[in-house]
Amino acid sequence: MALTPATHTAPPAKFSHGVRKGNILQVAGQVGFLPAEPGKPPVPAGPTLREQTLRTFANVEAILREGGASWDDVLMIRVYLTEVEHFAEMNEIYNAYFADLTVAPAARTTVYVGLPPGLLIEIDALAVLD
Amino acid sequence: MALTPATHTAPPAKFSHGVRKGNILQVAGQVGFLPAEPGKPPVPAGPTLREQTLRTFANVEAILREGGASWDDVLMIRVYLTEVEHFAEMNEIYNAYFADLTVAPAARTTVYVGLPPGLLIEIDALAVLD
Amino acid sequence: MALTPATHTAPPAKFSHGVRKGNILQVAGQVGFLPAEPGKPPVPAGPTLREQTLRTFANVEAILREGGASWDDVLMIRVYLTEVEHFAEMNEIYNAYFADLTVAPAARTTVYVGLPPGLLIEIDALAVLD
Repeated sequence: MALTPATHTAPPAKFSHGVRKGNILQVAGQVGFLPAEPGKPPVPAGPTLREQTLRTFANVEAILREGGASWDDVLMIRVYLTEVEHFAEMNEIYNAYFADLTVAPAARTTVYVGLPPGLLIEIDALAVLD
Repeated sequence: MALTPATHTAPPAKFSHGVRKGNILQVAGQVGFLPAEPGKPPVPAGPTLREQTLRTFANVEAILREGGASWDDVLMIRVYLTEVEHFAEMNEIYNAYFADLTVAPAARTTVYVGLPPGLLIEIDALAVLD
Repeated sequence: MALTPATHTAPPAKFSHGVRKGNILQVAGQVGFLPAEPGKPPVPAGPTLREQTLRTFANVEAILREGGASWDDVLMIRVYLTEVEHFAEMNEIYNAYFADLTVAPAARTTVYVGLPPGLLIEIDALAVLD
């Protein structure tokens, strides 16, 4: 089942923002694009890391919800940053965002890669529902 | 169960090109190597992005088939490119390749990383069979 | 269920070193930190690639064990290196480490990314238990 929240632009290629099969839900790599406006190209939140990161979290969460899941179900989060210098600030934002989790936080891998100009962070997530 | 298509050289280390356990099938990172010739080192298709990408897709597909799966079963595709400038062309190739999918396309994450010289793209895939 | 081996420092943010849900176990990205000493910041093994890689494997394995799994259960290993030149040596270390596996080796993806200063390798793993 493809998951396409109303807030999202169509993917830029033939992939799904998220897919759920049985109790496994995979969220595609999300970046900090603001809610889609019809007929306009996607625009990232920003320019700060904080704004982009919070928007990226919101975009992941919208897909989880569309598939009947929540952050509580997420087993693994992959964080792609462009700058090693952003690690500490991203962690602060991350901790505040997940402060209220009542289950085990997801595992996580963070690595530093290239992203298209203007993008500072990309996040994807794997959820396994009970 | 290790999945080793006849077209593939032995992996360069003690890993499997693909593994299936129950209904979950993971394809290892594939690059655009041409079908293996006994006694010769692997040679990538190319030099164009198109040739390498199509060969990489074929290599992923061979492993899916070896495990009794198809692209229809794929939940997540990870694309590693070396050049941000290749994103648009890769998407064109991707869309044409998947034009006939009748199920929800897989989720996808694309990031830009380093690869050994001569390689432009690496792809891995996670399938969950019905 | 969060997996936190005694040898590990607390994660630097609100994530788990590993999580198991049902028969699926995800190990977070591990680096070559030496066993945690209370009150001290984490220190990577090294400075050689060999020392860091073996320590990183040990850190992954500790999490697998904490979750009731072993390398035999691992379906996928992701290896993040900082230097393309390290590929051959990493494979030698990898092959020796897994020489005694009696099951199909895990699938693997290796890509080259940035990591914080002093770190040469990061590894995560997905296990599916029987």
